[in-house]
Amino acid sequence: MTSPEPVIDGDVRRVVALDRDEAIRLLAGAAFGRVVFTRDALPAIRPVNHLVEHDGRIIIRTRLTSRLTSAIRPQPPIVVAYEADDIDTVSHIGWTVVVTGFAHAVTDPERIARYERVLRPCVAAAMDIVVEIEPNIVTGMRLIDKAEPTDVEALGDAR
Amino acid sequence: MTSPEPVIDGDVRRVVALDRDEAIRLLAGAAFGRVVFTRDALPAIRPVNHLVEHDGRIIIRTRLTSRLTSAIRPQPPIVVAYEADDIDTVSHIGWTVVVTGFAHAVTDPERIARYERVLRPCVAAAMDIVVEIEPNIVTGMRLIDKAEPTDVEALGDAR
Repeated sequence: MTSPEPVIDGDVRRVVALDRDEAIRLLAGAAFGRVVFTRDALPAIRPVNHLVEHDGRIIIRTRLTSRLTSAIRPQPPIVVAYEADDIDTVSHIGWTVVVTGFAHAVTDPERIARYERVLRPCVAAAMDIVVEIEPNIVTGMRLIDKAEPTDVEALGDAR
Repeated sequence: MTSPEPVIDGDVRRVVALDRDEAIRLLAGAAFGRVVFTRDALPAIRPVNHLVEHDGRIIIRTRLTSRLTSAIRPQPPIVVAYEADDIDTVSHIGWTVVVTGFAHAVTDPERIARYERVLRPCVAAAMDIVVEIEPNIVTGMRLIDKAEPTDVEALGDAR
């Protein structure tokens, strides 16, 4: 679970593993991502926008009444995945990052107030819970053109 | 689990539930999506490209050695989610669709041959398993500008 899958030489694209810092940098720059969780033993996913702290913790906002909130509410904290990508719809060149880690509600009022100021969800009035996802496992890959002479291969340590 | 979440009136965007046909039509037109599954009791997600059959079944290809394949291999078939979206990174206007259903390997040689012809993965040489996802639960929503006078509201039956 903790090691990236092997890098593949395909006919069209090469897959290059990203190291943790690069993966978190790309995630932090993405406009939104998708939170993946288990609900009633079934996989569930929802697009949300996010904020990434310097240490890689991901902050999202959700609703008291949402399925995500009711999944996060129980103790101990649940594990979720958070994914963002930027893949060209035609060339399929791009990147994808997945962070897997514990998710729990932020309870400190000062932090909640700060996140509510800076993290404006798509549907602003409806969000009343701030959730923090720990970056326990960070994986990512870049899809590059096979012909591309690349220093990205230097990132291959994460293979 | 089976009903869409309530439609929200926010400050910025309205969320309108999509009916099943519209959701599958949008998914079929998307360049790629993300398969969501559970592996070692943890949520996992991976972007892949797909083909959608007329009845809404989603066809993807994966690798014998991948985590998705080893998750799908056991009997009985597992349940996965499949998500696609098209959300503007600035305006956050767009749509998202999630299909949840049983996933199993396609074993019929003729179907496999056909899918291998028409479904070219990003990394062509590496894919050796064809997976079919049944559209047991289909949900979707459209994020629209609050000011937009809309006949999309006619889709509100799914609320």
